[in-house]
Amino acid sequence: MTEQSLAIIKQAIGTIENYPKAGVTFRDITPLLANAEALHVTIDLFKQRYQQQGITQIVGIEARGFIFGSALAYALGVGFTLLRKPGKLPREVYSQRYALEYGEDELQIHQDGLSADDKVVLIDDLLATGGTVLAAAELLKQTGATLHEAAFVIGLQDLAGIDRLDDKAIPYYTLCTF
Amino acid sequence: MTEQSLAIIKQAIGTIENYPKAGVTFRDITPLLANAEALHVTIDLFKQRYQQQGITQIVGIEARGFIFGSALAYALGVGFTLLRKPGKLPREVYSQRYALEYGEDELQIHQDGLSADDKVVLIDDLLATGGTVLAAAELLKQTGATLHEAAFVIGLQDLAGIDRLDDKAIPYYTLCTF
Repeated sequence: MTEQSLAIIKQAIGTIENYPKAGVTFRDITPLLANAEALHVTIDLFKQRYQQQGITQIVGIEARGFIFGSALAYALGVGFTLLRKPGKLPREVYSQRYALEYGEDELQIHQDGLSADDKVVLIDDLLATGGTVLAAAELLKQTGATLHEAAFVIGLQDLAGIDRLDDKAIPYYTLCTF
Repeated sequence: MTEQSLAIIKQAIGTIENYPKAGVTFRDITPLLANAEALHVTIDLFKQRYQQQGITQIVGIEARGFIFGSALAYALGVGFTLLRKPGKLPREVYSQRYALEYGEDELQIHQDGLSADDKVVLIDDLLATGGTVLAAAELLKQTGATLHEAAFVIGLQDLAGIDRLDDKAIPYYTLCTF
């Protein structure tokens, strides 16, 4: 079942050459989302992996992590916590800046959401350079929650993300790699 | 079951006075999302409403519409289509600008996604002035898809959104109103 599901998922991911700029191969999840079967098996594979692990919350990174994260939270019957761009969360937040290829960005999490009693799966669509995930892991540390694993639909092998997560001993899982 | 579910949902929505500015009462969905039961009944009420309607795709508006939309698509076993801010979708798009309280914003949808064969539910967290939804409905027209209904977790009664949707004959549904 798993092999067949992974084939469905990989086939449903679009490939766009030279986007957003020349020399870059963009992996496009929108065909996967629009495909009822591919969306369902994606969430079911994550569900299968995490359902016996005592996970209390799924944590999704804005914006594409919201797509997979909330469906997984629903499938597992747990709650869903948001990691958002600055200025979007209404209560007191922890903030973490991180470097992008050009410039920097910032993620925030509510201070009164997660606690040391939580064991969470962090979810995003894509692991590339790993900068966003490292910032997210720092924010989770501030809340006291345990990061069980960071989960991605896609891992890009030729960027440094996997190495950077290994260096920081952050457990991760990618459904498929390119 | 429905009455009880609605009570759970309404109770789980946070209220923050004078946010984002003085005089505004902000409805905060993050406690609802973090609450496993409230999240589950929210999606299940939408599922119950749409499961016998021949819906082919759920369409979610960035970013909070992604949260409810993808979980609903998963629950219904249909695909999920994104309405995004400019510059986020990699293929050819239709674009629609719309007015905000101050300034304007823009939504986009892929041209090659939905077609006249699709019957969709449009989903967002909140119906306020209705500007975003009207823009979304225009984009759906361009794709040829049929808008079965626009669905919201929250409807704000003292803003003009409901009237504006009525004026344009856009069918809508709100789980709870404030």
